[in-house]
Amino acid sequence: MSSSYGEKLRLTIFGSSHGPSLGMTLEGIPAGLPVNLTQLQHFLSRRAPGRDEYSSSRKEPDHPEFTSGIIDGSTNGDAITAIIHNRDIRSTDYEQFSNCPRPGHADYTAHVKYNNNIDMAGGGHFSGRMTAPLCIAGGLCMQWLENAGVHIAAYITSIGSVSVDPYALSDVNPDLTLISSDFPVVNDKIAAEMKEEIMRAKADGDSVGGIIQCITTGLPVGLGDALFDGMESRISKIIFAIPAVKGLSFGSGFYGASIRGSENNDPFCIDNDTIRTITNHSGGILGGITNGMPLIFDTAIKPTPSIAKAQKSVLLDRMQESTLQIKGRHDPCIVPRAVPVIEAAAAVAIFDCWLGILGGNNHGYDIFQKRN
Amino acid sequence: MSSSYGEKLRLTIFGSSHGPSLGMTLEGIPAGLPVNLTQLQHFLSRRAPGRDEYSSSRKEPDHPEFTSGIIDGSTNGDAITAIIHNRDIRSTDYEQFSNCPRPGHADYTAHVKYNNNIDMAGGGHFSGRMTAPLCIAGGLCMQWLENAGVHIAAYITSIGSVSVDPYALSDVNPDLTLISSDFPVVNDKIAAEMKEEIMRAKADGDSVGGIIQCITTGLPVGLGDALFDGMESRISKIIFAIPAVKGLSFGSGFYGASIRGSENNDPFCIDNDTIRTITNHSGGILGGITNGMPLIFDTAIKPTPSIAKAQKSVLLDRMQESTLQIKGRHDPCIVPRAVPVIEAAAAVAIFDCWLGILGGNNHGYDIFQKRN
Amino acid sequence: MSSSYGEKLRLTIFGSSHGPSLGMTLEGIPAGLPVNLTQLQHFLSRRAPGRDEYSSSRKEPDHPEFTSGIIDGSTNGDAITAIIHNRDIRSTDYEQFSNCPRPGHADYTAHVKYNNNIDMAGGGHFSGRMTAPLCIAGGLCMQWLENAGVHIAAYITSIGSVSVDPYALSDVNPDLTLISSDFPVVNDKIAAEMKEEIMRAKADGDSVGGIIQCITTGLPVGLGDALFDGMESRISKIIFAIPAVKGLSFGSGFYGASIRGSENNDPFCIDNDTIRTITNHSGGILGGITNGMPLIFDTAIKPTPSIAKAQKSVLLDRMQESTLQIKGRHDPCIVPRAVPVIEAAAAVAIFDCWLGILGGNNHGYDIFQKRN
Amino acid sequence: MSSSYGEKLRLTIFGSSHGPSLGMTLEGIPAGLPVNLTQLQHFLSRRAPGRDEYSSSRKEPDHPEFTSGIIDGSTNGDAITAIIHNRDIRSTDYEQFSNCPRPGHADYTAHVKYNNNIDMAGGGHFSGRMTAPLCIAGGLCMQWLENAGVHIAAYITSIGSVSVDPYALSDVNPDLTLISSDFPVVNDKIAAEMKEEIMRAKADGDSVGGIIQCITTGLPVGLGDALFDGMESRISKIIFAIPAVKGLSFGSGFYGASIRGSENNDPFCIDNDTIRTITNHSGGILGGITNGMPLIFDTAIKPTPSIAKAQKSVLLDRMQESTLQIKGRHDPCIVPRAVPVIEAAAAVAIFDCWLGILGGNNHGYDIFQKRN
Repeated sequence: MSSSYGEKLRLTIFGSSHGPSLGMTLEGIPAGLPVNLTQLQHFLSRRAPGRDEYSSSRKEPDHPEFTSGIIDGSTNGDAITAIIHNRDIRSTDYEQFSNCPRPGHADYTAHVKYNNNIDMAGGGHFSGRMTAPLCIAGGLCMQWLENAGVHIAAYITSIGSVSVDPYALSDVNPDLTLISSDFPVVNDKIAAEMKEEIMRAKADGDSVGGIIQCITTGLPVGLGDALFDGMESRISKIIFAIPAVKGLSFGSGFYGASIRGSENNDPFCIDNDTIRTITNHSGGILGGITNGMPLIFDTAIKPTPSIAKAQKSVLLDRMQESTLQIKGRHDPCIVPRAVPVIEAAAAVAIFDCWLGILGGNNHGYDIFQKRN
Repeated sequence: MSSSYGEKLRLTIFGSSHGPSLGMTLEGIPAGLPVNLTQLQHFLSRRAPGRDEYSSSRKEPDHPEFTSGIIDGSTNGDAITAIIHNRDIRSTDYEQFSNCPRPGHADYTAHVKYNNNIDMAGGGHFSGRMTAPLCIAGGLCMQWLENAGVHIAAYITSIGSVSVDPYALSDVNPDLTLISSDFPVVNDKIAAEMKEEIMRAKADGDSVGGIIQCITTGLPVGLGDALFDGMESRISKIIFAIPAVKGLSFGSGFYGASIRGSENNDPFCIDNDTIRTITNHSGGILGGITNGMPLIFDTAIKPTPSIAKAQKSVLLDRMQESTLQIKGRHDPCIVPRAVPVIEAAAAVAIFDCWLGILGGNNHGYDIFQKRN
Repeated sequence: MSSSYGEKLRLTIFGSSHGPSLGMTLEGIPAGLPVNLTQLQHFLSRRAPGRDEYSSSRKEPDHPEFTSGIIDGSTNGDAITAIIHNRDIRSTDYEQFSNCPRPGHADYTAHVKYNNNIDMAGGGHFSGRMTAPLCIAGGLCMQWLENAGVHIAAYITSIGSVSVDPYALSDVNPDLTLISSDFPVVNDKIAAEMKEEIMRAKADGDSVGGIIQCITTGLPVGLGDALFDGMESRISKIIFAIPAVKGLSFGSGFYGASIRGSENNDPFCIDNDTIRTITNHSGGILGGITNGMPLIFDTAIKPTPSIAKAQKSVLLDRMQESTLQIKGRHDPCIVPRAVPVIEAAAAVAIFDCWLGILGGNNHGYDIFQKRN
Repeated sequence: MSSSYGEKLRLTIFGSSHGPSLGMTLEGIPAGLPVNLTQLQHFLSRRAPGRDEYSSSRKEPDHPEFTSGIIDGSTNGDAITAIIHNRDIRSTDYEQFSNCPRPGHADYTAHVKYNNNIDMAGGGHFSGRMTAPLCIAGGLCMQWLENAGVHIAAYITSIGSVSVDPYALSDVNPDLTLISSDFPVVNDKIAAEMKEEIMRAKADGDSVGGIIQCITTGLPVGLGDALFDGMESRISKIIFAIPAVKGLSFGSGFYGASIRGSENNDPFCIDNDTIRTITNHSGGILGGITNGMPLIFDTAIKPTPSIAKAQKSVLLDRMQESTLQIKGRHDPCIVPRAVPVIEAAAAVAIFDCWLGILGGNNHGYDIFQKRN
């Protein structure tokens, strides 16, 4: 039962990459929350493939059809279901992988686990395409959080060997408008170098990965819980569900493990009658609970496993070593398209906590307005 | 509802650091699994404080009393409950923090979230002491996994600025017996340097953090699921519940994000009629599912926030800045004591998946034996 | 979060009665289970309205479109999603009820709970039409249980004041083929009287309820658990989710409460090398666990609240008493159409337990075959 | 995983009847709720055995020891754990049943399900004694509901063949103080007849069951949800977890199934500026949601299966029919002791919903006071 996430809300993702359709159901959303479908479509288009030379040339406009839960521009308390119909399907591209598994993909593990009953076309529900429904849910949650003054933005801090200072943005008072809307990096010169890094890999029939930082501002103190439902646990469970994510750190993260307590601790101070911390090495989370500072985490995205270069693999039917040459349309670098996915995942995790501190008889919208 | 973990099993942790007792309930365990309480006690003693000069001088023997679920050396199908009675309690050490929160601790966030109703003594259920019940559950799961040929071992790869090559052990065929049982490091010379790093911090009234690598061998192909219940999501949810953990990566992790797909992909090969990968940058997980290779992850532990040095904080009642001097017994470095906790967390997450592939009418022991 | 059911599987129902569509997602189903869509359609047609004079004249063919999870006649391990597009919608029939709530309906409670943000048309997700998706899920589970030798059949034991002996079928060795396929009663003479009872109510602009007995044969010993996941708890949670169900009893039920222990206890005996009970007052469940005897429960269905007769109600906007005259298409008796719904609910609850005793790496089909 | 209940709270019951102890953990309770332990002890004593001649002579004072979650008379936001140490244990009374199962008990089903690994002494966790921890949780929830003006009371409406009118109390405006505190019946003359019915069964070495009605007053409109989390589903799941419960109906229940819609529907009216219904055949629930009227349900309790009379059973080791003579201490009628258990179960289910409409940062007590 791997397709669901959430405590107060529940997100279920269904469908597959190259089947007729895929979609999501989002339960537990109060009635009366406003929904801007134009803004949602704009958000989804940031993830969609085929937009530029850095991504797969597959064309999928990703227009969700809402079959329940939203009426006349607002939620009605029912479970929200959205379907995306797949269009540009070429499953023959994938046939060979059911016998000759691609390195770095789930072909082999799915073959064993599902006893070869799984739809291998396009990776079934292991495909990166399953992040489209995640973006529908996350895009909605981002809208509702925005209404309450919570802003989520992610940007690229490294591509392959090209990296910016991981604290390109202040971790205490970040200006999220500095993130370029086209290629989401703070520094234009570095952005150009990153694009070159991707084009070099593409030219070599290879791929590169990278690191994405996600910052959320405007959070109140008190989201998250002790122990297993701390903010780090909640966020990590959904972030690691994104294909290709292999690392996650909060605040000073792995670097913090190399310095001393006196350096890593964030001293408290008073600023305009509000308690905050002078630094933000904790990434906005203490004891699993938000402390009112920007919530910051870094995510490591592995290089796309599908590459044009020949690779060693095995033929499962003959139990024989072999060489695999992957054809088809693939991204030389998934990192730019992963940026809105990271934002969406963060939004779902945070809005789930937010619902926990709402009360009343499902009078969601009123309470949201009062908090503004 | 932050105190529970698991899908097929459910671990609930209760109690607090300086209250009368703390403990755990572990549901969903089949009847008839053998339990070696001597071996469990040995495992718990690795986490217990007061063993050496690197840890807190608080003496807590951590002897669990099993009140249900285990009879005559084996499980009986009932929920397993164990209680640890606290002995060496000095809660007056903690009184001041309810008004003057310690940097890097949950004092402030818990104060706001629980409206000052929480027991601040010893950090309540935010305390590192809550990892003792986790070790009871994990110690049991490790025994059951050992019976099935699955071995879990963690070791330190860095303390403060002293680090070993993160791949001190082979990631393809690791020899877990090379880990020293006293101070869990592979290289004795590095171990000595790490101890010096800790003692230097202690002498300065300061603390250091570090990185722990955890390796699990003997896993079958097929544990874990797609999407939200992938092995990375399952493990991350429980690892980030451990206080002081701020980073987690699988296999090549953040480093993998800097290299190319052709380097990071693990080619398949055939070895003694078995399919395996030539390298193991995936850390034994593809598409959220174990691939039969060693499952490897790295965890970043922040430096202990409780330090003797004076720190800036605020007085909550007067909304006034202040200086805080923490007294009491604290670890200059929590990393060595965190090693068995990481193992325990991994064991709970993995055994939870393991239960999912068992069947039958709860005939746990028979099925385990058949797998040997 | 009211739209989901299950432990090993998870059924989520979404959509509404008079919106564009409604449907269900069923997670946790192993890959490789066969699906007969023709047989499913036949099952769904038993619930669909407009078949005869006893039910609403609304025409809804209830053809589900499977958007995921089923490929080439078998499950593929993905979440199964099915959509039913609504056709014969007349939501103006329902407009008045948002201000003048119908007695016996959820109009008033939904108005208060959802702050008038809910879609009142057709009762939103409180409508009996939401049982169509339940029948999709249940119809699939019934097919898989049939493959394993488990048979589920329900039949009417009373309509209004006309009732048969509640043990029309033997509770020890019931012959389920005696149930008429047209109007599901065992005794044709009683069936005719029941139909008359319905037509009398219809002629009076009124409605009648009734009692349905559901029998499941072929179950192994050992399904269900102690305490909160006993078979009675599992079945009751889903049965009471069916609109109009107001009572549920297992085996001798309320009657059993009036006799003595020596009469109500079912003595054990040995029959062809198998242990069974001589009587079956327990309804096949002891301590929450199936005992291998037929699982039998009775369900009380209230008379349809929508009646043509004038009723007292209130005008919510004016806080004034009023008289309500309901127009539109309604069933004078919902009981015959509820029979397959009860079967479907039982199938989902039982198959959820069944999955718990399956094991292996999701090799569902093999294990099912072995059990035949 | 059968030991847990709840959505916003989570109740876990552990231990066994004749092991060293049993207890419960209750998670999800806000910090700052007051707890009156004297009142709780009084509530528990209503369930405890050995009080009079109608119940088992086993002496168990049922004094819970709270090991976490309650400090200085109020909750502290941590999971609440309570342990009851068993004292008067005679497990040799139960040894024979592991081979010769008692009719009407879980001996046989548990034997098969748990492969004989279960502790048979006293029925393990199938014992009625497991309702003691349920009463701890329920007793606490009742206190918190009382603070908010919600009153729960159950009383006996039949014992064996002796019954009062099921509507002994008004279902529209019930006076709960009419219930006798000693033997919980409304009518003293009927109470005397019921006691005689029990003593007759006892004299015959037999047992009787009965029916309990539970009434909750003071509920707001809006508790419960559509579909699977309706009030009926929530209550039924926990009520059927009580051993010996075999039937449950809400409002007019099975009787309602025999009358017409025009009789069973409850017309709305306006009473002192409040909307209510003139009758209460719905039992206070419409569409799964409370409507502000008294919530009323009836529960059928089967006669205690342990009787002194000889019964037919089988010897499991020899697969041979046999005669069983049960010795030991047993209740000729469990119904009076089940009354507080029913109240406790109702309180847990209702308080779980109540938590769902609370909001804020866990500021439970404040919100409760505001509602008074």
